[in-house]
Parts: sequence; C-alpha cells; structure tokens
Amino acid sequence: MRAPSRPTEAPVPTHSRLLLAGRLGALDAALWVFVAATPVGSAAPPPAEAVAAQLRDAAIAGHSSAYAWVSELTTRFGPRPAGSVSEHEAADWAAARLKALGFENVHIERFPITAWVRGAESAAITAPGTQPLTIAALGESPPTAPTGLDGDVVLFATLAELKAAAPGSLAGKVAMVNARMVRTQDGAGYVATVEGRIDGPQEAAQRGAIAFLLRSVGTDNHRIAHTGTTHYVDGRVPVPAFALPAPDADQIERLVKLGQPVRVHLFSSASYVPNAYSQNVIADVRGRERPQEVVLLGAHLDSWDQGTGAIDDGTGTAIITAAAKLIRDLPQRPRRTVRVVLFGSEEVNQPAPPQSVFGGHAYATNHREELANHVLTAESDFGTDRVYSFALPKAATGGEFAKVALRVLNPIGIIAAEGPPAEAGADIGPSIEAGVPAFKLSQDGTHYFDIHHTPDDTLDKVDRAQLDQNVAAWAALVWLAADSDVDFRSHAPPEQKP
Amino acid sequence: MRAPSRPTEAPVPTHSRLLLAGRLGALDAALWVFVAATPVGSAAPPPAEAVAAQLRDAAIAGHSSAYAWVSELTTRFGPRPAGSVSEHEAADWAAARLKALGFENVHIERFPITAWVRGAESAAITAPGTQPLTIAALGESPPTAPTGLDGDVVLFATLAELKAAAPGSLAGKVAMVNARMVRTQDGAGYVATVEGRIDGPQEAAQRGAIAFLLRSVGTDNHRIAHTGTTHYVDGRVPVPAFALPAPDADQIERLVKLGQPVRVHLFSSASYVPNAYSQNVIADVRGRERPQEVVLLGAHLDSWDQGTGAIDDGTGTAIITAAAKLIRDLPQRPRRTVRVVLFGSEEVNQPAPPQSVFGGHAYATNHREELANHVLTAESDFGTDRVYSFALPKAATGGEFAKVALRVLNPIGIIAAEGPPAEAGADIGPSIEAGVPAFKLSQDGTHYFDIHHTPDDTLDKVDRAQLDQNVAAWAALVWLAADSDVDFRSHAPPEQKP
Repeated sequence: MRAPSRPTEAPVPTHSRLLLAGRLGALDAALWVFVAATPVGSAAPPPAEAVAAQLRDAAIAGHSSAYAWVSELTTRFGPRPAGSVSEHEAADWAAARLKALGFENVHIERFPITAWVRGAESAAITAPGTQPLTIAALGESPPTAPTGLDGDVVLFATLAELKAAAPGSLAGKVAMVNARMVRTQDGAGYVATVEGRIDGPQEAAQRGAIAFLLRSVGTDNHRIAHTGTTHYVDGRVPVPAFALPAPDADQIERLVKLGQPVRVHLFSSASYVPNAYSQNVIADVRGRERPQEVVLLGAHLDSWDQGTGAIDDGTGTAIITAAAKLIRDLPQRPRRTVRVVLFGSEEVNQPAPPQSVFGGHAYATNHREELANHVLTAESDFGTDRVYSFALPKAATGGEFAKVALRVLNPIGIIAAEGPPAEAGADIGPSIEAGVPAFKLSQDGTHYFDIHHTPDDTLDKVDRAQLDQNVAAWAALVWLAADSDVDFRSHAPPEQKP
Repeated sequence: MRAPSRPTEAPVPTHSRLLLAGRLGALDAALWVFVAATPVGSAAPPPAEAVAAQLRDAAIAGHSSAYAWVSELTTRFGPRPAGSVSEHEAADWAAARLKALGFENVHIERFPITAWVRGAESAAITAPGTQPLTIAALGESPPTAPTGLDGDVVLFATLAELKAAAPGSLAGKVAMVNARMVRTQDGAGYVATVEGRIDGPQEAAQRGAIAFLLRSVGTDNHRIAHTGTTHYVDGRVPVPAFALPAPDADQIERLVKLGQPVRVHLFSSASYVPNAYSQNVIADVRGRERPQEVVLLGAHLDSWDQGTGAIDDGTGTAIITAAAKLIRDLPQRPRRTVRVVLFGSEEVNQPAPPQSVFGGHAYATNHREELANHVLTAESDFGTDRVYSFALPKAATGGEFAKVALRVLNPIGIIAAEGPPAEAGADIGPSIEAGVPAFKLSQDGTHYFDIHHTPDDTLDKVDRAQLDQNVAAWAALVWLAADSDVDFRSHAPPEQKP
C-alpha cells in the first residue's frame, strides 16, 4: 500500500484506497474534473488520459452508483429467471433508473422465449438405507413423472468415462458424472469440467439412462447445488437432469465404494411457458462528435432462479451502468457514444437460434445495420472480484492506446494481457461474430465458482472495494476508447487462439 | 512448528506432526508401548505419564479409529434424528462395532420419546413482489395449516425488543428476531444469541403472533438455515417457528427498510410420532483394579435431520470411542473402568423431564445406583476442531494430577483453564447434577457455528489433523484419570461461576 500518484510513463504505485478516499472526499465532482482538465506540473499527460485517471480515482473512492444499483435490484426483485414477472419488473425498474440517471435513448426491446419454471424437486437415496439428497434440476430439464423416478446409480468419474460406456448399458439406470472442478483464477477449471453438464444428459440418454446426475460444477463444499444449461437434442433436454452439491456427490461415491447398489428416487415438477418473452434494456451516453460510433457495454439482467443473481450478473449490470454514469456526468461527453445493454435471458440461451433466441442474439438482429459502426464491445459477467488484466483487440494490442490504458489501469492492480481476448462473453458474442471488436477486463475468478448458479448468489457476497475497482477500470478504459479515434477493427484476419 | 520432544517439567514445544508421523510410522504399537514402559534418560517420568504421552503421540500420528468411525457412521446412516430408523440402525451398528473393537459390557438401553418429523416446508415473500425464502422449521415446531399461513413481518433486532412489545401488538403478525451471532472461540457468541431461538416462539405467541421467524443462530452467510430446539409452553412449541439463513434475513431487513409492508407465506407439514424410542449405547474398558469406579465419556449418536451429523456429533462419538480404544489396546488396562456412552436423543431434549426424557436423563436414571462410583465424566460435543484448554474438577485443579496433565497436553497446544468447567455438556448434565465430577476439553469453536444444525454438517467438514489432536487429548487425559487413584469429588460446596 503506497500513496497515490499521478500516472506517468513509468509504472506507478498502487493506490492507497484510504488516502485517496479521504482526499477525494474533500473535493466535489466539478472540482476533480476541473483539475483533470487543467493538469499542472512538468510532465502533464494529455487530457483524455488525465480524465481517465480521474474517473478511475472517483470510482475507487466509492463515488459510483454501483453498490446502490445491485442492492436495490437484488432486494426488490430477488431471482430474475428469464421470462418471469421478476425479470420484466427488473427491466422496467432498470429503464426508469437509467432515465433518472440521465441516460439517453433508454428503451426496452422485447423478444420471445420459452421460459422454464423449476417447480418442486426432491431426491433421496433409497438403498442401502434411506437418506435425503439436496439437488437442483439443471436448467430446462424436463420434469419426472408425478410420482418421480427410481433407478440405481452408475457412477462415472468423468464425462469421458460415461462416453466410453456401451450403448444400452445404462438402460433403466441413473447415470452420474462425479468430476471435480479445479479452482483456478481465470475460469479454466470451469471450462475443463462444464462439459459434463453440457453434454452429460444427452450422452446418458443415448445409452439408455432414465436420468442424469451431475456433481455440481463448482468449487465449494456447501449443501447447495449449481444449476446451469445443457445442450439440447431435438429441441429439448433428453432426460431429467440434476446437479448435486459436492457433499451429496461424495456421499454417493462413498456408498458405492461400500459395495452395495445405490438406488435413488428423483422428483421434479419443472414446467415450460412457451409464449413467454424477455427483453434487453438499452441506454446511451450520446457521443459529442461521432454519436453513430458506439462502444457497446453488456451485462445481463436475468439470473438463475436459486439465488438473487447478485454476482451473476447483478454486479455486472451495476459495473457497466456505474462506469457509463461517471462518464455521462463529465462536463464534456466522449466523442463516441457509450451504450449500455442490460441483456435478458442470458442464462437460458439454449437451444441456439433459429430455434430460440436470447438477449445477445436479439440485440445483434435488431441492430444489425448499426453493428458496422460499433467500434468496440465488452461484457461484465464474471462476478464482483477485482480486474487483474485487460485485453484489447488485435489492432490495438501493443499500440499507443494500450500504453495509455496500462498507465491508467496499472495503479489499480491491472496488467496488460499478451494478446487479444480469446473469448469475450455470451451476450456480445453475436455482435462479435458480426465483426465488432472486443476488449476484455479479466476478473479474478478464484472464488466465483463457490457461488455461481447457486442459492448463495446473494448481495452479502459482494465485496464493495472490489466492485469499485471494477467500476474504475471500466470507466477509465471505456472513456479512453470512446473519446479516441482509434480504429479497433483489425483489417487482418482475426487471430485465433489454439 | 518445532521438533517433538519428550515431556519434561518445563513447557515443551508443540509437536511437528510430520516428523512425529514419520517417526512413529517406523514403530509398531507394541514397540511404542514398550518404550513407554521403559523410559530412558535422567529425568524419566513415572510410567502413567509416559503411557499418556505415548497414547497422545499415537493418536497425533493418526493411529486411531476416529476418522473411519465417523466416515462410516455418516455415510451408512446419513441424518440420525432422534427416534428415526436411521438412529436405531446407527445404534445397532455402533454396538456391533464396539464389540468388534474389543469393548466389554456392550449393550443398548432404550427409552421412550416423542419423535418429530420435519416433513415438507417452504416459504416466500409475497409482498412487495414475490420471491422465495429458504427456511428450516425449528425443532419440534408444530405444522402450519395445510394451506400454510400468511402474515406481515414485524422485525425485531433482538429478543429483548420483542419482549418489550405490548401484549396483543403482534396479533395476526409474523414476529421475526434478527439478532446477529458474534463469532467467538469459546461459544460465547452462541450463548448470547440462542435465547432468541429458545424463548422467541413463546414470547411471540404471548403477544398474538401467528408464527415466529429467527435469523439463524450461526456465523455463516450461506443459504442454509440453522435449526434447533426451543422452550416448550404446556408441553409444546406454541406457534410454527422457523429459522432463516442470514442472506434471507438480510433480504427481509432491506425490504422493510424500503418502507413497504413485507408479507410472507409459510408452510410446514411437520409431524410427531408419540410412541417412538431412542437409545443409549454403552461400552466399557473394564478397569484392572477397581472396575466399579467409572470414568464416563459421553457423546451423542443422534443428529439433526438436515445434515449427516458429522461434526454434531459424529466426531464426538468417534473421538471418545477412538480414545477408549487406544486405552483398551494397551498391554495393561487402567485401574478404573473407562465407559463410553453414545447417547440418543440429545438434540431433542425438550420438554424437560418428567414430561419427556432424553439420553442423558435416561442414563442417570438407569444408573443412579452406580453414579456414586462414577469418579469423573466429560462430553465431546463441540465439533472437530482442536482442543486448546482443559479444565478439571475443583478438587484436582492446581494439584499434582493437573501438573502431569499439563505436561502431557501442552505439547499438542493445550493449556490449563484457570478453574473447573462452568458447564460440561447436555448429556452428562444429569449425572453431574447427581454429583459426578466433570472435566472439560475445550475445543476451538471459531468455525463451529458456520455448520452447527445445518445441512452443511457433513463429513467433508472434518479436519483429520484436528480430529486426531482431539483423540490424543482424550486418550491421554482419560488414561491419566482412569489409572490414578485421585478423588475428583470436591468435598467443599461446588464453586459457582458468576
């Protein structure tokens, strides 16, 4: 912890949050912008960089709307599953709030979806002995019969083991994949394990299984299950599919090792609402010189139904909204437009178009004509923990823009990634596919998968200091991009990561 | 972490677990007992002390049955609520296992209870907006009507605030106590908060409330609720009573602050089984000289129904059983008998006798004639974390026995308490009231109330190194007491703590 200092060409020390908060607390917003616009000293940075630094410092000092946003969103509406009344009401609330915050072009764009409703669910081990299990149906899982279903568990350590099982070998059985997710900072552990959830139900069904059980794709050991979507086959999840908390999966594994058949009873009354809708909420900070050029910021307003979607993705919506609001409140708007899109139905993005749509797809379709003028995009959807790295499109990597960005971001603990982002997010995916360049602010995901898609995704898990650091990074980098005339489109073929 | 050293008059360094395990791994049990019986060096301790040190070291090195016991108990039988088939089967298993381990006088003593069955339960906020709540009925709470009940929440920060409410002021309301438990090492935070659970339902009912909600008496922030018993009025819990996880209590508190009435729907189909039974499992290591003199070790085999009772109190039963087994396997038995009692129905110990009985009461009644020859007793029922302090009856505090005990226990991180135990446990309580002196091995409870009485009480929460340290402390201290001729009965009036 060292004292704050003005960014220079050399790496600058990390902020002292307390010192900074004390200092900025004595200044009002107008004053710090004025200071930014009239730099003093012999090595005065260019104004855009100084403004970026001041945006950063204001956010770090807690002068942002982020925490109030996520607190009110999650408290008023609780869980916001796609197509639910809560999701609709949250969108109406968000639009009203964005108008009140001074955003322009605030409107809601609806799109049709088939909604899924969890209903009641329960499970128990019925042999040897009887004991209850905690479960959560995987997203869009079909219900069981009203009396439930019963079957012996066939345990696989990995999805690969399940895929090696012979056709018909699981007839009448309940297939279970017990793969353990490895804790990593960047989410690689999730990527390495989530295929069990994505492909497990169909692989089990193909071999005759009547249901699928999954050790939760998560890193905690609480009695809460991690839900999530799976791949559809012919427009549906082929068999009832459930996640188990790690302790319940361990229990079944130990019982299997004791050598007797382990039988389970599973029940779900999940249902579908075929004529539901979801919506994207759109709001702009209009650019002062080239308003048709858009920097697109995305996050999603829907959540899984078990928690209140605080870190997935209430804080994402809070971060991009608060960052854009700080930029909006500057005396001078950036040259380009900053657009915030709060996507609907991100979690339920199966099956793929054209069978179904989700928020990101609906946006890219509705705004296809404008995408050529979307100069840059990014998404915040990886929790609330600190940003540690930024990646720019190939056209900007290593250039002057990147150097300025590093000078502004390094003091709050952010380094430059070596290359452009390999992946930038589900909702902006269709826009990226249409040619919009992406940047990425990578967050520390070490603890994200303790909570992701569980009942534990609630407001108390939000670390306010790290939330503020996210807003700081977004406000600074988005300002720099929106006030620049950099062409972020790579005119060479896009670089592919292996 | 320093190297192990032989106990001396001076305080000795804490064990290096790895070094010790490596060293003892090269010795077999017969050898280490031989070494104990033939001390070398100029300051050779008396044999009993040396044997105690060797028992300690064997346990620290992992040479005990404790982990296997708690693993099999919790895996085979899962939750073991008092009076359930699982509790009965666990008792049968334990008796068979104790016989196989070589204990004597192994038998089961049944006693009648009224069992309580949780049934289905659910809750939701219904205004403003609708969102689900996680709840757990408090133990022995009566069911709601089959259609549930609805009421506006009246929030009290503490039980004292509820008790200050006027008669009739809660008519038709749902009273909620939102007191936050403070994390402490010795459980003082629990003692300071649990009165909300104990007395909340009756205080709410007296003022007209139709139900009672309690912020869980616990220190975690997961979406799991801490159950537990409450005081009865006229032989029953007067209104349906539920615990909420901390995040759900926070959510209600924030909604109340938003200024609109918060209405909840509560449902429980809990039921009672009037003619149930529970049982105590008794097993002895018979003393070689004065077998009628008994050192009584207690823990409870029943558990709450939400978890599998790993730390409450599977490990307690594992610790005392493993400690007694180490003593039993010595070439020479202690002078006095070591008795293990695995109590039934500890969690459901309301209402008090004579309306109902629980394991501790049944034992004291069945063995009333023998209690005058029970020389010492203690209970292990505070989780699995390390022992940090021991307390002896007043008659032994500060004497030669205490000095020897400190020399043996201090190397594994245990200090001597200043006075005798103020409280020693629910199950041995009736025996203590009948005059049996108590000792106490105080465990670190810093994390105990993250898990206590929740679904999270599962095997994965057991820290094996700390479990072994518990066994070490129990084996050493129990051996010293059982092999001694110390009269632990204080013949002065018992010292009262303020």
